Amino acid sequence: MDSLEARHDLKNDSTRMLNPLDPEEFRRQGHMIIDFLADYYKSIEKYPVQSQVEPGYLSTRLPDSAPLEPEPIETIMQDVENHIIPGITHWQSPNYFAYFPASASIAGFLGEMVSTGFNVVGFNWVSSPAATELESIVMDWFGKMLQLPTSFLFLGGGGGVLQGTTCEAILCTLIAARDQVLNRVGRESIVKLVIYGSDQAHSALQKAAQIAGIKPENFRAIPTTKDNAFGLSPDLLESAILSDLVVGLIPLFLCATVGTTSSTTVDPVGLLSNVAKRYGVWVHIDAALAGSACICPEFRHFIDGIEGANSFSLNAHKWFFTNLDCCCLWVKDPNALIKALSTNPEYLRNKATESNQVVDYKDWQVQLSRRFRAMKLWLVLRSYGVVNLQNLIRSHVDMAKHFEGLVGMDKRFEVVVARNFAMVCFRVSPSAVGDCLKSCDEKIVNEFNRDLLVSINGTGRVYMTHGVLGGVYVIRFSVDDSSIASVS
Amino acid sequence: MDSLEARHDLKNDSTRMLNPLDPEEFRRQGHMIIDFLADYYKSIEKYPVQSQVEPGYLSTRLPDSAPLEPEPIETIMQDVENHIIPGITHWQSPNYFAYFPASASIAGFLGEMVSTGFNVVGFNWVSSPAATELESIVMDWFGKMLQLPTSFLFLGGGGGVLQGTTCEAILCTLIAARDQVLNRVGRESIVKLVIYGSDQAHSALQKAAQIAGIKPENFRAIPTTKDNAFGLSPDLLESAILSDLVVGLIPLFLCATVGTTSSTTVDPVGLLSNVAKRYGVWVHIDAALAGSACICPEFRHFIDGIEGANSFSLNAHKWFFTNLDCCCLWVKDPNALIKALSTNPEYLRNKATESNQVVDYKDWQVQLSRRFRAMKLWLVLRSYGVVNLQNLIRSHVDMAKHFEGLVGMDKRFEVVVARNFAMVCFRVSPSAVGDCLKSCDEKIVNEFNRDLLVSINGTGRVYMTHGVLGGVYVIRFSVDDSSIASVS
Repeated sequence: MDSLEARHDLKNDSTRMLNPLDPEEFRRQGHMIIDFLADYYKSIEKYPVQSQVEPGYLSTRLPDSAPLEPEPIETIMQDVENHIIPGITHWQSPNYFAYFPASASIAGFLGEMVSTGFNVVGFNWVSSPAATELESIVMDWFGKMLQLPTSFLFLGGGGGVLQGTTCEAILCTLIAARDQVLNRVGRESIVKLVIYGSDQAHSALQKAAQIAGIKPENFRAIPTTKDNAFGLSPDLLESAILSDLVVGLIPLFLCATVGTTSSTTVDPVGLLSNVAKRYGVWVHIDAALAGSACICPEFRHFIDGIEGANSFSLNAHKWFFTNLDCCCLWVKDPNALIKALSTNPEYLRNKATESNQVVDYKDWQVQLSRRFRAMKLWLVLRSYGVVNLQNLIRSHVDMAKHFEGLVGMDKRFEVVVARNFAMVCFRVSPSAVGDCLKSCDEKIVNEFNRDLLVSINGTGRVYMTHGVLGGVYVIRFSVDDSSIASVS
Repeated sequence: MDSLEARHDLKNDSTRMLNPLDPEEFRRQGHMIIDFLADYYKSIEKYPVQSQVEPGYLSTRLPDSAPLEPEPIETIMQDVENHIIPGITHWQSPNYFAYFPASASIAGFLGEMVSTGFNVVGFNWVSSPAATELESIVMDWFGKMLQLPTSFLFLGGGGGVLQGTTCEAILCTLIAARDQVLNRVGRESIVKLVIYGSDQAHSALQKAAQIAGIKPENFRAIPTTKDNAFGLSPDLLESAILSDLVVGLIPLFLCATVGTTSSTTVDPVGLLSNVAKRYGVWVHIDAALAGSACICPEFRHFIDGIEGANSFSLNAHKWFFTNLDCCCLWVKDPNALIKALSTNPEYLRNKATESNQVVDYKDWQVQLSRRFRAMKLWLVLRSYGVVNLQNLIRSHVDMAKHFEGLVGMDKRFEVVVARNFAMVCFRVSPSAVGDCLKSCDEKIVNEFNRDLLVSINGTGRVYMTHGVLGGVYVIRFSVDDSSIASVS
């Protein structure tokens, strides 16, 4: 019985057949898109940074059902130019300083192309060994660049995995921590588990807690203040833990942040871990944005004390030149993840898994199917090299420092919290707003800054977003790679 | 204060600077990778389909830390050829018939390129309106192609969202169902919630239940038998629900499968929904693999009764020509998802959200950050058109039918369960194994088939995987697009 025979039979019946992976058609269309994107990067500054469209704009421009017959790629790309580009906010524009840096790069893009081209599904080792092995190797490479304790690396009994986003990294570690405890004290105690973070922790923490079935009232967003630059206080953490213990609750999980979303504040990782450890609390360090900076020796101190944590994550798709999505998660105890997340259906049984000689990443994450993300990170690490990566990060910090200096020189503005990395939180100062008022109402100042930001973004020339810190509305100026691209 | 000024200052300090998105370098390297991939598709049959490497092969070939200095793309791609390709299993090979079809296509690849090139992060509408609006539009397009009830479409008050994988789709709908109930009966009842599926349901269901905090003993994998082709029996479902109610448990969630992993069995969607509805159970239809076929009128009956379900998902990255990853989820009540999954941090507040005129997909999924996946699906729908997509699917089914015929003509083999779509479950028949035994031991037959499969896959000429159905080891022959690519 020959499958070739089967295929040849079908060939004769193939007037209706097209080959969706025809190599020469792939080549022709692929080159076209490369040129389209190269031209896009070249002319990106001609577009308003923030999209200026109104809700519902696209449905008035596209048909309301899919075409019956094929359309040529040329027509489709014309529609991308005419209808899609006006509706996107240009995250890769040099004038983009909003949210967080989504620092794409040539290497990151190429890595995604190769991964998408192979289109292998590496859920376990055997389904595509290189996808798994390259991931383990680059995670150890990257861990060494960050000087992580060896206990977080495969070579030290821990290990790293690439997830999509920090939300998933937090969710998976939280599930691991949860099930460790529940397997000991009984499933009924799920309603007693308590999660801790500061009020500056990313919303991913709250969302992970919701998904994991933690009781909403057992989520502690511990207040921060300007006095300690909006960092989480170890004393307040300990008080919160003690209060919970007194009423019979079970402290479970702490998420400390290195580089908060609103102000890139760094929680004191070491001190917090010491407190958490005393009460058997799992410590996760969320360094989504700022973790990448720790490859530079001068910034490494921001994660000092990490040896006390159980898990650590950062987004290579934020400040590490790897196109979306690519979240790096390292854990000291992979078995905790595996126990909580593994399933072993018959159809995935194989000798390699049973030999215990391989990693099956499906058991380290929410999803079964997974893309070959390691390809992107590998290309980024090799195309730029450690020294250039450090220098790129330094150049962003230098630029933010320069901007901070300009703000400081202009009496109308003020920097609201100290800058740690490549983001500056500033505002029009109360004295400039209230030149006719001696004591200017904070609400009026906030309103003024909000309006200013809206009107700046409305010009399309630049795009920044906001935060609120201790009641103060701040404009966030977040530098990334593309900010510099246009000047080199 | 001019940010351009800041950048120009830095420019003078830029001996160490490189531009990670230099358009001309992007163009040069991008064209190179297109040619690399076109050549890969052209010569894909020269590689063994299943990778033949041993565990740990890659660490002996790569350095143990990242390079300090940049390496040229030419060197890196040579390493991809020499070290990565031997370690991947060629899911796009025409001789690949394993697991499930990961049917890549030119349009799917190009869509991923455009999405990766723009690298926008469309977590909410305002962060890139086109990403959200195109997604809503193509989900309505696709829903119409499947003749979904309008209650699943935006135009009928429901709506669709692109997730990464079915694991996420099931998890999100399960969380929505869970919180609807817990908000009514109290969080303490989480330990009483019960999940139902057949013993053929995908492991994603069990995993979602684990993550959602459902008590492991409250997960019902209802046995199936050969008599009803391994489909879930509505009577057994009802018995299970009644038994649970008697002991004070709360029936929560049913996952019915259209196209099971082991045998592409179709659970009777309508009858099961009728049972579930009577007890207030949320019904999710997992049509990960086979749902795509329902765009053909002759296969649409497989989801008859879907109007009784709450949610429905399929993977466009399986049998719909969209490169990994792209799971389509439709729900009747988006608010159930949103209530369970939304968070509203200050730094994401914006006027569009507050106007309630827009969709913010971050509240429909686990993750905050999300890729512009709609671009892929849009390109697939437009590049091929509905008619060609139907014909592609038909051609796969025809090929499986042909293979089934060949098996039937060969006395040594037998088809184990009736074929529904493009997968044939067969084995060497007991009479062929046990030609010297009158009543051949089933174990020996299983062993024989297992050994046969291992030795076939070991040749590298073809790759199939296995399942076990009612104790019978079967070889799964799963046809996809690339199976046909080489003959056209």
